[in-house]
Amino acid sequence: MKRKSFANAPCSVARSLDVIGDWWSLLIIRDALNGVKRYGEFQTSLGLATNILSARLKALVGKDIMCVGPASDGSAYQEYLLTERGKALLPVVIALGQWGADFLFKPGEPLAVSVDARDGQPLKKLAVLSADGRALEPEEITVGAL
Amino acid sequence: MKRKSFANAPCSVARSLDVIGDWWSLLIIRDALNGVKRYGEFQTSLGLATNILSARLKALVGKDIMCVGPASDGSAYQEYLLTERGKALLPVVIALGQWGADFLFKPGEPLAVSVDARDGQPLKKLAVLSADGRALEPEEITVGAL
Repeated sequence: MKRKSFANAPCSVARSLDVIGDWWSLLIIRDALNGVKRYGEFQTSLGLATNILSARLKALVGKDIMCVGPASDGSAYQEYLLTERGKALLPVVIALGQWGADFLFKPGEPLAVSVDARDGQPLKKLAVLSADGRALEPEEITVGAL
Repeated sequence: MKRKSFANAPCSVARSLDVIGDWWSLLIIRDALNGVKRYGEFQTSLGLATNILSARLKALVGKDIMCVGPASDGSAYQEYLLTERGKALLPVVIALGQWGADFLFKPGEPLAVSVDARDGQPLKKLAVLSADGRALEPEEITVGAL
């Protein structure tokens, strides 16, 4: 289905989904946040057909979420790196991971989550807070124009 | 394209996307978090064809993200409400909204974001923190098994 574009929607959630709301794109961003840089590594990780991976990487570069550069080790490979705005998607990926870990695994099922590289501890749960630091429930949040 | 299922993936991000990684589903969840409850209200908000909206709502109910109940005002309408696990998607929607607000709007463009219902102030920026409260960059995070 050709989807409706929300590229010009006033809602910032809709506009974000218009840019990164593709399932594969978010998994590519997840891998890049985890340090994956090379085409072959993305392919191994995602098990994705070459034409689809190439198209998604190209789209992410076109949207200034990733950029292409020479390999950091001086080899002939190219590397796909996250731009600043790509790296800023970290909370989106972490939020998805924490929700999945909380609700989609049975006890004892193998579970891979983001952890602190320093000590291997799980991250703190993302907290939705007011400007003055109160934890907010959905009922305490509304839509406002800025 | 028939997409690969990650319903049994060990990665909690992939598993979450398998359940809610549909563009329309996330916008329905966004609306529900904003207090939208009735079919006609979702339709007005999303401008979505009836068959697609019905299928998405049914899928969200089937995945225990929403549930159907009688109208709170005693009328004949049904209401679609978020379950606990649906409400727990709030950080995902807020993270998407904050990223979009930061990167996808030109100065002066109309922008709708989530605000504190009490005072209309924007929410605090979601922070990715270690268990002991340090702000973490992507390079300081790795994947661990729990």
